[in-house]
Amino acid sequence: MSILIFGHKNPDTDTICSALAYAELKNKLGKDVKPVRLGELNEETKFVLDYFKVGKPELVTNVAGEKIILVDHNERTQTADGFEEAKVLELIDHHRISNFNVDEPLYARVEPVGCTATIILKLFKENNLIPSKEVAGLMLSAIISDTLLFKSPTCTLQDTNAGLELAKIAGVNPNEYGLEMLKAGTALGDKTEAELLTMDMKIFEIDGQKIGVAQVNTVNEAELLENKKALLTEINNIISKENLKFFMFVITNILSNDSVAIVEGNGDAVIEKAFGQKVEDNEVVLKGVVSRKKQIVPPLTKAIQD
Amino acid sequence: MSILIFGHKNPDTDTICSALAYAELKNKLGKDVKPVRLGELNEETKFVLDYFKVGKPELVTNVAGEKIILVDHNERTQTADGFEEAKVLELIDHHRISNFNVDEPLYARVEPVGCTATIILKLFKENNLIPSKEVAGLMLSAIISDTLLFKSPTCTLQDTNAGLELAKIAGVNPNEYGLEMLKAGTALGDKTEAELLTMDMKIFEIDGQKIGVAQVNTVNEAELLENKKALLTEINNIISKENLKFFMFVITNILSNDSVAIVEGNGDAVIEKAFGQKVEDNEVVLKGVVSRKKQIVPPLTKAIQD
Repeated sequence: MSILIFGHKNPDTDTICSALAYAELKNKLGKDVKPVRLGELNEETKFVLDYFKVGKPELVTNVAGEKIILVDHNERTQTADGFEEAKVLELIDHHRISNFNVDEPLYARVEPVGCTATIILKLFKENNLIPSKEVAGLMLSAIISDTLLFKSPTCTLQDTNAGLELAKIAGVNPNEYGLEMLKAGTALGDKTEAELLTMDMKIFEIDGQKIGVAQVNTVNEAELLENKKALLTEINNIISKENLKFFMFVITNILSNDSVAIVEGNGDAVIEKAFGQKVEDNEVVLKGVVSRKKQIVPPLTKAIQD
Repeated sequence: MSILIFGHKNPDTDTICSALAYAELKNKLGKDVKPVRLGELNEETKFVLDYFKVGKPELVTNVAGEKIILVDHNERTQTADGFEEAKVLELIDHHRISNFNVDEPLYARVEPVGCTATIILKLFKENNLIPSKEVAGLMLSAIISDTLLFKSPTCTLQDTNAGLELAKIAGVNPNEYGLEMLKAGTALGDKTEAELLTMDMKIFEIDGQKIGVAQVNTVNEAELLENKKALLTEINNIISKENLKFFMFVITNILSNDSVAIVEGNGDAVIEKAFGQKVEDNEVVLKGVVSRKKQIVPPLTKAIQD
């Protein structure tokens, strides 16, 4: 039985591409592994797989009884159903470690870099291997996606160097390709409000309270804000369903590198404390904020715990 | 302010030597770090530091406000007071990950090998460095201690190879030195029952229940079992004080590689299920069992969770 490799629920480009890339590395090392996904692809990831002509991983929803390798996530709320009944062999990630409990020793490689694919390139090299042209393209895409084309504060020198090296192997111009890819990701098409809110939603548990933070990239935030009333209705549905304390829908402009968030639930005091910004009319301006991991979750955690 | 590097409470040879070794590596890399310890040294570790003429790390009990690097442990119950108010920069470990929650991304290198020092040797090499003669001796000692001279089921080929390589740098015969070191560790001297039970005690939280597992090495288990009544009295004190469901005091014979455990508290059914052995007169025979991490905690976890 193949070992399953997968990233988080509501998959993004890093999660999908890192699963595919780590599977290529493991296969080259003679391991029987299979990359899988826990949900539907977003527009950006579809563009990436089309561009490099790579098929999408199979959908899996429950991993009970499987041997598994986690990439790009570790928190219980973001992983597959049946996690407790699976055997976790490895974890390759670049997030904080939280609510991740396993019964037996495992191989964990977690580094505070901007993208999981950056760590995976390192693992290729440690094994004296290089990714194929297509997989290098996927890994480059993951880095561009997670670092907003090397501009996010999460982006380290390691990520930039890895990106440039992968661009050479993939044979693409990173800036031209990157902008095209990010713009493809802002095409929201005919998504319903529910789809918009959950396509990149993550749930975090802090001091026993669950909060939801979704993020979407755009070149035109006004278009999304126009629809605030319908979005708020749907956010309230999610809050009830997932039993959340509050929810932030972060709209990030990939050209200006600023965000604005639509917020709902019992979180205004925490949000104002975390960001030093007033919540007005269910909106909060987050100037210079593009990274959920580095600029949103840590201040929220601190504000809740204080 | 120096970054503090430390292993678990009730320090053993791997915890102390890995803190010292990783501090040497970090110093060579130009980082301002200081190895510290969370408790008193055991007889084996004292022998090791005397043998290689290395001073013991400073004692620290609370790390609030510090920047910290954890080696050889990650579970909240085994780490320093003030952990929540510290900034965790790194984790180098070979145990399961459990009850370890941090707010921000960190560097974590966790591998399913027999000893933390084996991972640290790898990190030296990745940085094109080698440990000094003294520190190589400490790292060899850590590996011998954790693998019972390469015989524990936790011992991997990587541990054995690292041990042989370190023995060369340290200039000692691993088998002769190792047996001398392990025997020094069985010298219990004039320890009280409370000291015997807590010098290598670890507390694990499984499904919300806390259990204590202490381990001691010996060449003569009869000597310890003679004192069972007094040990049980003291175990009951620990159970009350730490609010444990049950406690196992595992006595491991380093020559036969078998163990016998003295058990107390509300755990007989779980223990019998975990090991398929009757608990009689507060004793359970654990033939071929030497590793708490691999042969005791996982079956107990499974038995409790089932």
